[in-house]
Amino acid sequence: MVKIKALLFDVFGTVVDWRTGVAEAVSQITLKYNRDVDPFTFADTWRAEYQPAMESVRSGARTFTILDNLHEENLEKVKKTFGLTDVSSEDTKFLLTSWHRLPGWPDSSLGLKMLKKKFIIGTQSNGNISLLVNMAKHSDLPWDVILGAEVVRHYKPIPEAYDKACKMLALEPDQCMMVAAHNDDLRAARMQGLKTAFIKRGTEHGNNQSTDLGAESDWDYISDTIIDLAKQLNCP
Amino acid sequence: MVKIKALLFDVFGTVVDWRTGVAEAVSQITLKYNRDVDPFTFADTWRAEYQPAMESVRSGARTFTILDNLHEENLEKVKKTFGLTDVSSEDTKFLLTSWHRLPGWPDSSLGLKMLKKKFIIGTQSNGNISLLVNMAKHSDLPWDVILGAEVVRHYKPIPEAYDKACKMLALEPDQCMMVAAHNDDLRAARMQGLKTAFIKRGTEHGNNQSTDLGAESDWDYISDTIIDLAKQLNCP
Repeated sequence: MVKIKALLFDVFGTVVDWRTGVAEAVSQITLKYNRDVDPFTFADTWRAEYQPAMESVRSGARTFTILDNLHEENLEKVKKTFGLTDVSSEDTKFLLTSWHRLPGWPDSSLGLKMLKKKFIIGTQSNGNISLLVNMAKHSDLPWDVILGAEVVRHYKPIPEAYDKACKMLALEPDQCMMVAAHNDDLRAARMQGLKTAFIKRGTEHGNNQSTDLGAESDWDYISDTIIDLAKQLNCP
Repeated sequence: MVKIKALLFDVFGTVVDWRTGVAEAVSQITLKYNRDVDPFTFADTWRAEYQPAMESVRSGARTFTILDNLHEENLEKVKKTFGLTDVSSEDTKFLLTSWHRLPGWPDSSLGLKMLKKKFIIGTQSNGNISLLVNMAKHSDLPWDVILGAEVVRHYKPIPEAYDKACKMLALEPDQCMMVAAHNDDLRAARMQGLKTAFIKRGTEHGNNQSTDLGAESDWDYISDTIIDLAKQLNCP
């Protein structure tokens, strides 16, 4: 048995509740501008632009661009969709940086602290460095290292995103475990030889979530929370 | 007055005692192989190869190469100098990774914990990611973010090394403060607009140290220890 040395975490959805965090910021803005917009629908619509924007980078159609910049472009589209183009630049920045202030799930901070005693814990997120650092300070996420798209210059699930993260830690892929609430992220990580842990997050997309409701493969670990994962990994 | 948001630390010499840490590993090897080599002289000789090796990258003569690889090349030279070419590959790796296990100065861990409550604290080191992460785990250095040469792809004191670090934190240069025990590092950082803090480390090079014995300019902060800096910055 190879010993796992590092746990690499997907962040949006797995560690933090992006939908609630973004909707909270949107509701402050719609209240201020007195608009009748459902903040969760706004958040979902904004998030729906996420994969297509990254895909343009993955395909090589555009050079590597950090997620804050993609979010900013996407926000302009979504503001039009919801008739919010008159939102000031300061308030637009407030919306944009809501991604830097996302709340952890109730178990995230404690679970990470438990895991940190035994493993290197790092981000393996498509978020950019400042977003992840600010979020960590805001939501008490005690990362040992901020890795992810801006560091490796590739968006998941491109194979290089996983390979380079392991290499930067000077570890073999099977000494690293990808931790995610998304089966496709784990599939891509396993293809590169990483160990895999699934965290069940049944309300990432709200109460009517239809995807990633359970493990779709025999992942190395399957957990309900990060604390549960820590316990399975014998972290006191 | 612009508010400082992030403190970027030089690591070798400023936060950790590389000379003692490397000499400790060397003494274990010379004892094992029964050789009469002064471990501090070995450490100094190895370290003397550091700047020339990075200079070949800075000048563009070779593509970016992480410090572990430069250290490895330099170690082969130094092993020859001291007649230690018969050291096994396992023991050579032990020497090489002594840089991953360097001890903090007595004030480093506590001082960083004090500063972390109020600021983003990050590495701004020529060390590579795995070296800095392993060292942080080993010596309880609670970094919020591992930046430095491997992330920005430039060795200090190249201006881009400082510029890119600030940009990756989405901060203006004057929202960042370079913390170092080396006046030339601070000079280069100030040229790029960063704030500067000098930490006096009078024995980095041993008891006969002749350089960096004091602040050579009106740095924004001048401190005897990292704890002292934290107190000056009103961190409880």
